[in-house]
Amino acid sequence: MASKFLEHINSPADLRKLSSEELKIVAVELRKFIIDIVATKEGHLGASLGVVELTIALHYAFNTPEDLLVWDVGHQAYGHKILTGRRDIFETNRRLKGISGFPKRTESIYDTFGTGHSSTSVSAALGMAIASRLKGEVYKQHIAVIGDASIASGMAFEGLNHAGVSKANLLVILNDNAIGIDPSVGALKQYLTKAKVGHKPAQDNIIEALNFKYFGPVDGHDLEALLKVFEELKAIEGPKFLHVITTKGKGLKKAEEDQVKYHAPGKFEPDTGELLNYDTEGLPLKYQDVFGFTLVELAKQNEKIIGITPAMPTGSSLKYMMQAFPERAFDVGIAEQHAVTLSAGMATQGFIVFCAIYSTFLQRAYDQLIHDVALQDLPVVFCLDRAGLVGEDGATHHGLYDIPYLRCIPNLIIAAPSNEIQLRNLLFTAQLQLEHPLVIRYPRGRGVEAEWELPFEEMEIGRGKCLSKGSKIAILSLGKMAENVSKAISKIGEKEKIGHYDMIFVKPLDEVLLREIFSEYKNIITVEDGAVTGGFGSAVLEFASEEKFAGKIIRLGVPDEFIEQGSVAELQEIVGISVKNIRRVLNSLL
Amino acid sequence: MASKFLEHINSPADLRKLSSEELKIVAVELRKFIIDIVATKEGHLGASLGVVELTIALHYAFNTPEDLLVWDVGHQAYGHKILTGRRDIFETNRRLKGISGFPKRTESIYDTFGTGHSSTSVSAALGMAIASRLKGEVYKQHIAVIGDASIASGMAFEGLNHAGVSKANLLVILNDNAIGIDPSVGALKQYLTKAKVGHKPAQDNIIEALNFKYFGPVDGHDLEALLKVFEELKAIEGPKFLHVITTKGKGLKKAEEDQVKYHAPGKFEPDTGELLNYDTEGLPLKYQDVFGFTLVELAKQNEKIIGITPAMPTGSSLKYMMQAFPERAFDVGIAEQHAVTLSAGMATQGFIVFCAIYSTFLQRAYDQLIHDVALQDLPVVFCLDRAGLVGEDGATHHGLYDIPYLRCIPNLIIAAPSNEIQLRNLLFTAQLQLEHPLVIRYPRGRGVEAEWELPFEEMEIGRGKCLSKGSKIAILSLGKMAENVSKAISKIGEKEKIGHYDMIFVKPLDEVLLREIFSEYKNIITVEDGAVTGGFGSAVLEFASEEKFAGKIIRLGVPDEFIEQGSVAELQEIVGISVKNIRRVLNSLL
Repeated sequence: MASKFLEHINSPADLRKLSSEELKIVAVELRKFIIDIVATKEGHLGASLGVVELTIALHYAFNTPEDLLVWDVGHQAYGHKILTGRRDIFETNRRLKGISGFPKRTESIYDTFGTGHSSTSVSAALGMAIASRLKGEVYKQHIAVIGDASIASGMAFEGLNHAGVSKANLLVILNDNAIGIDPSVGALKQYLTKAKVGHKPAQDNIIEALNFKYFGPVDGHDLEALLKVFEELKAIEGPKFLHVITTKGKGLKKAEEDQVKYHAPGKFEPDTGELLNYDTEGLPLKYQDVFGFTLVELAKQNEKIIGITPAMPTGSSLKYMMQAFPERAFDVGIAEQHAVTLSAGMATQGFIVFCAIYSTFLQRAYDQLIHDVALQDLPVVFCLDRAGLVGEDGATHHGLYDIPYLRCIPNLIIAAPSNEIQLRNLLFTAQLQLEHPLVIRYPRGRGVEAEWELPFEEMEIGRGKCLSKGSKIAILSLGKMAENVSKAISKIGEKEKIGHYDMIFVKPLDEVLLREIFSEYKNIITVEDGAVTGGFGSAVLEFASEEKFAGKIIRLGVPDEFIEQGSVAELQEIVGISVKNIRRVLNSLL
Repeated sequence: MASKFLEHINSPADLRKLSSEELKIVAVELRKFIIDIVATKEGHLGASLGVVELTIALHYAFNTPEDLLVWDVGHQAYGHKILTGRRDIFETNRRLKGISGFPKRTESIYDTFGTGHSSTSVSAALGMAIASRLKGEVYKQHIAVIGDASIASGMAFEGLNHAGVSKANLLVILNDNAIGIDPSVGALKQYLTKAKVGHKPAQDNIIEALNFKYFGPVDGHDLEALLKVFEELKAIEGPKFLHVITTKGKGLKKAEEDQVKYHAPGKFEPDTGELLNYDTEGLPLKYQDVFGFTLVELAKQNEKIIGITPAMPTGSSLKYMMQAFPERAFDVGIAEQHAVTLSAGMATQGFIVFCAIYSTFLQRAYDQLIHDVALQDLPVVFCLDRAGLVGEDGATHHGLYDIPYLRCIPNLIIAAPSNEIQLRNLLFTAQLQLEHPLVIRYPRGRGVEAEWELPFEEMEIGRGKCLSKGSKIAILSLGKMAENVSKAISKIGEKEKIGHYDMIFVKPLDEVLLREIFSEYKNIITVEDGAVTGGFGSAVLEFASEEKFAGKIIRLGVPDEFIEQGSVAELQEIVGISVKNIRRVLNSLL
């Protein structure tokens, strides 16, 4: 991958030796470098292509790493990584032991703040700016680069609201491309669009109302314009705001045209952007699609059904319901708190709301789930996609804590289907006369059953299932772990000694089934795709203690440490819930 | 308590029979009624006094309960409760089995949405408004009454941002009194203040920028003006916003003059507002003050110390540091998410941030704690006041879930001091070279040691304490439960058989001490002031399982149900962690 300048840029200091004409060549080279690698190694494409010029201009104009640069979310930080000494390892992006797909403090001094979840950059950079003031480092700049989808989240507003009354040397750069992963929504977005299409922002615009000095809009692909405005901004103290207009996917025609698909397109032809076809014939569907399609099917029959997603119509597959029933399905933007309380409000009026949130993002609405839903015992259905290890997105995105953080909440029902048919039937059951909130956690990726579209069957709440009877060891799997456990057992000689139970419900536990297991086995193994501390295995342990079970209980799950990126299979092996790991534990007990 | 009109008003229908002149008399009577009862029974005073006219006007002008009225937070809903059929039971306010101090759905059809935590009203009312549209109930009004402190929280912004692009029939009423529990802060507050002091809001004001039709400001104590504007508003479809100016504590001079103290003043002389003196001579200090005073002491010695509170300077006693070191202590408003990530940002620059948040409110910043603090292993110190049962504030405010929801997070240290000296020494230890995030949970109310101001001693992380050795039963208490356990043991005949261990740390557990206990006792009891599901006792159970402890473990704590209001002593008795309960369990094992 020969380049004239890029291959010699090992830090922003090298960049700063170039002329502004040469920087334009760097932009071309950087864009090509990102496209070439993401085309074969996969990853997030569109966001980084959109900020190539902005990234170059920032590292050129500001004195990084002394000046502190925070990238919101971090999907767009590939160019930043490449220019800050990680060019040659960039091909390890998102791989096991490779570099992270997001900024990460332990990876580089240029990554001032780890991201992955959105809307944290203003608060983090403000904290740094206040710290610099206290240390008397008045020369330091603190820059948050935040997208128009992220800035609409409440957390970003909280940061802006505080920054506006501080004297902190904070520059907030709005990277406005009118899209997050899906197109941006909300009143603020409409407002920003007005500002963008040529209306001179009013004197008293929304940003100035929050005490920021407002600059822009600036064309984010015009390097010279960016460098000029940065020079101007450096001289200004206090909170300031620059509105930059960019195009997501810039420089790759297909990525500009289909910004949703090219957010993270998988493998593609680098020159044309043509997506490489995967042969998915005969593969099971993704869990998210089982959810999405089933919800449409149910919504046709039950007009009380509502769908809500905070900014993940594509990722959650709620888009199918949004297309079929636009009046009854809502993308509320990156606003998990609002999504949950909105669901609660609708539930008070008799609607059955399916609120689709990734496990890791429900952390953002934990209080609302407790205070607005569970305390009022409202029958909201939380569809927790991406529960468990998610693979390449890494530590910020694994959905590992939901079982411990949900299990302690009264009134909640918590289920984890082990296949698509169970997911489908849980969704069906949820819209019958369920009088409590229900959480259904299911994993990222494909299911296990090609034939999932069977007639609906009501599931009994709190009822698990014996998959095979044994004599010596009972292995209790939760959710997708049933598959690994079945495979592990199938490779064992004395498999008739092993009983396999698909527990399905974390709460309420199937106490009848558990009592039976306690009386029939001396050894119990629990297996879950989640944090083992306080998780499903602990629930079994608690009940076993109450029941005075005297045998041995081994809990398999994710240990008490953060887990980085890698393929799901690799990570399962590392944490000890792979087929091989499970077989080893079984053999040690036989 | 003779009144001309109030005693005959059993629902808003009765109110609607009166003339506007008569309503003014109702306002006088209602104010007096609130003052007289709160003066003797205690409760939240200032907020409800401030909205007497607004409450009357709302129930008069709108067709409640058909029209749906949501009170944000709910401190201000006393007048609402009294006018909607709860006049005669109002004296049971905040008592065991009495009415709740907050709106509560199970209590009245007029309480459309339970509150307690702030900033939920816009989302909840929007959910109701969208529901009404879907049901074709176009005549229904949906009203959120929200204070200026609450509207600055990110969650409220998320609701407004969504409402602005909906066609929902939503009226947001900003009850602007420039104060929450403490004075409001932030850029939005400054902006609203400008609007209030007579500047005609610009055409493009911040609310209109979010697509709301803006009305006001209106004097919230002028009944006729309120009724007039409500008539006007009823005719307007879509999202609309009314800015109402009120005075917190209105009608009681002292309450108007000292709005912070009269938020919840305790007992007072109803005519003058004079506070009744309690004799606190010789009583131990409140935990919050031990925190507040100690932090000032430490901040004098260590200039790296920062204090942050989201809107609780008085409640957390961070106000002492804010007075002593205004540059280093921050009230960021009702913005828990921002508070935590701001703390993380400062921590990246070498500061040691003490982030003071009530246990129940940390639920609002759960993701930030995981994603921004723990994942980056930043040494932020979370000072969790009001952990455990808090008494009269009830179900929305008990801090019962923090142990389960925190225990599963890697890198976190979790401590629960059993007295003021331990709290003090934990704070001291936290600002030494601690390289991980630390959570210190301590209860509402007074401590147990009059002499707490002893020289600092470093505490060993993860080290518990044997208070008394025994032979048959080991009772492991966490935090304030040490006191109940000591009292329970002292009243038992064979007390020499009982070992009492003050564990102090939930994470890391004192494994050395636990192994000793496992080897010496056959019976273990754990006692915690928090949810027993997944709590401290479960941590002991998990370790006992790993260590193959064969004895019996009984876990005492709050069972898996929401706990309503009552005195702490009453609630401890109900949930089974009172001295009497503990003694009974001990006796049953002896």
